[in-house]
Amino acid sequence: MRNCFICFIILFFASLNLHAEDGHDLWLRTKSTGIVDIVCEKSSSTLNIAIQELKQCWRGESGTTLTLTVKPNILIVDDGFKISPGEIQANTDLGILYGVYELLRRQQTGEQIKEEIFNPSYERRLLNHWDNLDGSIERGYAGLSIFWRKGKDSLIVTGEDKKLWEEYARANASIGINGTVLNNVNASPNMLTSEIINRAKEVADVLRPFGIKIYLSVKFSSPSLIGGLKTSDPLNPEVTKWWNAKVKEIYNLIPDFGGFLVKANSEGQPGPQDFGRTHADGANMMADALKPNGGIVMWRAFVYETSGGDRAKQAYSEFMPLDGQFRDNVIIQVKNGPVDFQPREPFSPLFGAMKKTSVMPELQITQEYLGHSIHLVFLSTMWEEFLQSETYQQGKGSTVARCTDGSVYPQKYTAIAGVSNIGLDANWCGHHFAQANWYAFGRLAWNNSLSSEQIAVEWIKLTFCQTAENFDKIKDPLLVEWDLNFLKPVKQMILESREAAVNYMMPLGLHHIFAPDHHYGPGPWWAPKGVRKDWTPPYYHQADTNGIGFDRTQTGSNAVSQYHEPLNSKFNDLKTCPEIYLLWFHHLPWNYKMKSGRSLWDELCYYYDIGLQQVRQFQKVWDKIQPYVDSQRFVEVQSKLRNQCSNAHEWKDACLLYFQQFSRQPIPYEIERPVHDLEYLIEIDMKRH
Amino acid sequence: MRNCFICFIILFFASLNLHAEDGHDLWLRTKSTGIVDIVCEKSSSTLNIAIQELKQCWRGESGTTLTLTVKPNILIVDDGFKISPGEIQANTDLGILYGVYELLRRQQTGEQIKEEIFNPSYERRLLNHWDNLDGSIERGYAGLSIFWRKGKDSLIVTGEDKKLWEEYARANASIGINGTVLNNVNASPNMLTSEIINRAKEVADVLRPFGIKIYLSVKFSSPSLIGGLKTSDPLNPEVTKWWNAKVKEIYNLIPDFGGFLVKANSEGQPGPQDFGRTHADGANMMADALKPNGGIVMWRAFVYETSGGDRAKQAYSEFMPLDGQFRDNVIIQVKNGPVDFQPREPFSPLFGAMKKTSVMPELQITQEYLGHSIHLVFLSTMWEEFLQSETYQQGKGSTVARCTDGSVYPQKYTAIAGVSNIGLDANWCGHHFAQANWYAFGRLAWNNSLSSEQIAVEWIKLTFCQTAENFDKIKDPLLVEWDLNFLKPVKQMILESREAAVNYMMPLGLHHIFAPDHHYGPGPWWAPKGVRKDWTPPYYHQADTNGIGFDRTQTGSNAVSQYHEPLNSKFNDLKTCPEIYLLWFHHLPWNYKMKSGRSLWDELCYYYDIGLQQVRQFQKVWDKIQPYVDSQRFVEVQSKLRNQCSNAHEWKDACLLYFQQFSRQPIPYEIERPVHDLEYLIEIDMKRH
Repeated sequence: MRNCFICFIILFFASLNLHAEDGHDLWLRTKSTGIVDIVCEKSSSTLNIAIQELKQCWRGESGTTLTLTVKPNILIVDDGFKISPGEIQANTDLGILYGVYELLRRQQTGEQIKEEIFNPSYERRLLNHWDNLDGSIERGYAGLSIFWRKGKDSLIVTGEDKKLWEEYARANASIGINGTVLNNVNASPNMLTSEIINRAKEVADVLRPFGIKIYLSVKFSSPSLIGGLKTSDPLNPEVTKWWNAKVKEIYNLIPDFGGFLVKANSEGQPGPQDFGRTHADGANMMADALKPNGGIVMWRAFVYETSGGDRAKQAYSEFMPLDGQFRDNVIIQVKNGPVDFQPREPFSPLFGAMKKTSVMPELQITQEYLGHSIHLVFLSTMWEEFLQSETYQQGKGSTVARCTDGSVYPQKYTAIAGVSNIGLDANWCGHHFAQANWYAFGRLAWNNSLSSEQIAVEWIKLTFCQTAENFDKIKDPLLVEWDLNFLKPVKQMILESREAAVNYMMPLGLHHIFAPDHHYGPGPWWAPKGVRKDWTPPYYHQADTNGIGFDRTQTGSNAVSQYHEPLNSKFNDLKTCPEIYLLWFHHLPWNYKMKSGRSLWDELCYYYDIGLQQVRQFQKVWDKIQPYVDSQRFVEVQSKLRNQCSNAHEWKDACLLYFQQFSRQPIPYEIERPVHDLEYLIEIDMKRH
Repeated sequence: MRNCFICFIILFFASLNLHAEDGHDLWLRTKSTGIVDIVCEKSSSTLNIAIQELKQCWRGESGTTLTLTVKPNILIVDDGFKISPGEIQANTDLGILYGVYELLRRQQTGEQIKEEIFNPSYERRLLNHWDNLDGSIERGYAGLSIFWRKGKDSLIVTGEDKKLWEEYARANASIGINGTVLNNVNASPNMLTSEIINRAKEVADVLRPFGIKIYLSVKFSSPSLIGGLKTSDPLNPEVTKWWNAKVKEIYNLIPDFGGFLVKANSEGQPGPQDFGRTHADGANMMADALKPNGGIVMWRAFVYETSGGDRAKQAYSEFMPLDGQFRDNVIIQVKNGPVDFQPREPFSPLFGAMKKTSVMPELQITQEYLGHSIHLVFLSTMWEEFLQSETYQQGKGSTVARCTDGSVYPQKYTAIAGVSNIGLDANWCGHHFAQANWYAFGRLAWNNSLSSEQIAVEWIKLTFCQTAENFDKIKDPLLVEWDLNFLKPVKQMILESREAAVNYMMPLGLHHIFAPDHHYGPGPWWAPKGVRKDWTPPYYHQADTNGIGFDRTQTGSNAVSQYHEPLNSKFNDLKTCPEIYLLWFHHLPWNYKMKSGRSLWDELCYYYDIGLQQVRQFQKVWDKIQPYVDSQRFVEVQSKLRNQCSNAHEWKDACLLYFQQFSRQPIPYEIERPVHDLEYLIEIDMKRH
């Protein structure tokens, strides 16, 4: 099948095809190179899209006949599909569309096409947009919202809006995403005003043929804020009535509306606890309102209070007692780690622990804590690490993936959400390589056992192999050259990139030592008086002259106890605790001897330095592939990498110089010295801040 | 004599003596450790200082008798001296003082003390202060002027002023400096007003016992500007009269006044050419006025005009025709290189070429083009390279040193000047290591055949070996350790430091590609419309897609012709032109093959990178010696090195990215990639500017 791999070798047509390229086409660059005969007995807007995609992008043998068959098959689940040479079969029209995208992807990437069934891991695969109604995006680094905008024309739906939403829908459908939350979890009550719901309906209408349902984030206090009620108490009949009516209003406009996403009693957001009720009371009230129309409630478990002790324990402490009290159309949406989307965290102990409640993972695609749209960080490896984490809740094999996708527990609904990194930037994501994270999220949501390597290879081939009008001219030797000189080094780079970010930001289990607010650069020193302690880095790194790290062992906060054995003991015991989580679970003296034989202080220095060296290596990799990529994307990525390198240098210098005040030991002299003074780094942090 | 080296080993008394240390004591840190019996028949303020120094700083055997003898000795020249065990002999009181400083230095550094005569290479060894009367300093990076200040109290001489001037005089005397020009060569006419001369007299009175004469920079148009005359034409009798009267006024106050320094018809300064007269006419008029009192005129040859063709040729073209026309108390003061104090220039062809005129070198101690007081750059090696340059004007051995110190030509006066790096900063020079340049200038002015290595060793020992009250406790093993762990690496670092600066700023003969005005960072791109071409970097680097470098060969500007054979041919011929001057003399294609086998472009990249690596290495050297130095100087130098490293990185990135636009070739992939975008570097340059 090697010659099916129709990647266009740039060098071959360098002078002809190296045009400026803004990245807007994402991983969807195929142009048809032959004719396909499509047999399809049924017709629908979704099937029409499938047929159109086949015609536009067909890369198989010209003249092939392909049959699209919608008929029940017990082996096919939901919108899954079966591909055979000559046929795509599915239970649903959407299944056919997904099958078409899979077939085309295989044609483009040179993967084998044989009889095979593809079923989704999760029933609901959602993007969460933290988009505000004024068009700004919380933690957005790629321009303003594609859904909302400020100003007097904010409610007008233009042709451009629809074109963009359709492109958005197509991109999502091509990787299996079937739901999207249109607004920020820190929700404006205005989301539920009729005029805003009406705009959401317009979005839903564009997304529907691509199989994407819309969902809305709602503010728990909406009944009192916009409904004119005196309370938003979930047990108050007026409140229930208000929500029922609101839900009805929505379904009248959007008959396939997906449901609500709720951030309640979290970081200042209102919630049922404001009225003496539980999270279950609040979630169930909404779930009851949604149930008649098949809607669901995604209720976030991201809760913590200064008074609640170790922040990493609080979601578990608060939600575990409620296990079994939620309606079956409530899903508890849990961030992957117990704190907050850090470069590395152990998995949240709620996964697998809530046995009588549906639980869905929330991943963050937008790089709030991973260098925004400046750093090249491929998050797939982080998510793979998370999904494959053993919870041991039902013995070996109870990975997070299997505990959430229905394999271990019989959940009525399964779902996974990713906080979107999409904005109005021409390339959608700010960084060309941030597109890979959108892609990877979709692919993992569809198949949570995919390897990051496979996803990387797919994405690189689809994104950087130019579409070829004359692909038949391509010779194998050139393919081999492209594989060797582009695919291989770029793949290696992106697969290594998240570990590099961990190394230069917070290795060995360090976490949340970011500068405040922007969460971009380092801020281990930041702890002004009067600020919540659990919002300051010293709360997390606990560095002093004795040592560093958060003691979460049995003699510390005992967060380890929230993990099922043997993890509890493994994390608790220095001999068995993985060094990647060392300072997450342990407070250790600076001279603590690491497995490498080095002291903890020296090891920390080495990790920060290695991280910086890795980014420098990425720069070399990228510069070397220049002949194989269009100039615009080359230059834009090159510039971002330079910026990333400078920032990695700041991270290294800031953390080493700051912690050195406590370790009182020299940075090992083999290591390149800091080039910034600590005072300067604190100053620029404040300026950014 | 090993145990004479009374360096205090810090480690030995670490807890006792590592106090904060602002560097104000320079290289004069000795405290007496014994008693010396001084026999001296004569008395004078200068001899009193000599005796006091001996008592305060004696490090020889306690109880020694030392005789100070002022008597004529034909082997001793000027203020030279003879040291023998037990006696210092000299023609003059000042010779005795110099002998005392030499003896004490040898005691401190552990050098041999035997019968030996020390004679100065130059009769006049001057600092030039580019201090303005408002207290600011042109190209000063160590605070405001120690001589002048702004405001209504500017003319009051305080006790603090006198104390500082005395410290200044002592430091200068200790290295043999015997003259100082108190104000900027871009002179204010007000310098010659009576009230300002009066303040100069106060300075002179403090400096006199230390053997330091004062000189003044004068503005050529002073007669018309402050004298009420209609002209400053040097051949006008009224003008001559005015100068005669002014000189008389000065000598009335300052009987040992040294003379005038003049920047005329240079960079907008007025001069004799404004009246159709020659430099000789102007200089001779002043020389005649000064002659009766033994004063001299130092007339600068730093002249160039946009219309004058290759700037590097102009001083020679303009002054050579005047050779023989100057009075014998005129000395032409010539900058070391033909352009302007660049990190590396070939010597100015005027040296050795003017055979019937006294010529003196002007060196720049202040680091205008060498990183200000931020970069650690030991200039001694640059000056050694310059002084030892062969001019071939009288055959082999006609070095610049020998052509200016009277060895080759019978000059009535010999002199050398260094543009001072001194200001009100506690450590005098802004950077602790910039003190080494003040020291080195003095030492080379005294003995122009000293090696930089010897100067480096002296200065490091004097500056960083703590004074020891209990130096007798010092054990040889500790001395060996200090030698190995401090002296050796620090010496190597400073001896390498100027070459490093050349590497990261302008290797291979590149010159004057600085950002405008501040001359700190890179600015190879700077060439706005309407600016004099010879003030813009592209004039000097001449980079285009064909190549880079200034063609000064016989087929170019023919600047090579100003050098005496065989230098003319050597520089002209690519096969023999030293690569360190390659792009100074040649415009070469990017693919020109260097001796290394690399292309010119690749070689350029490697040099910039090596320069950066060298600074990183300096950082390691410095960090490692932390146990041997007081914390204040350690931290201050460490911080400067960080800054230097960042700036070296900017240099490398800026020049490579800028020139790459022309070379159109990749930076060799082995080399660490740029971390700045060119646009950013241009932007910060503009901000600094």
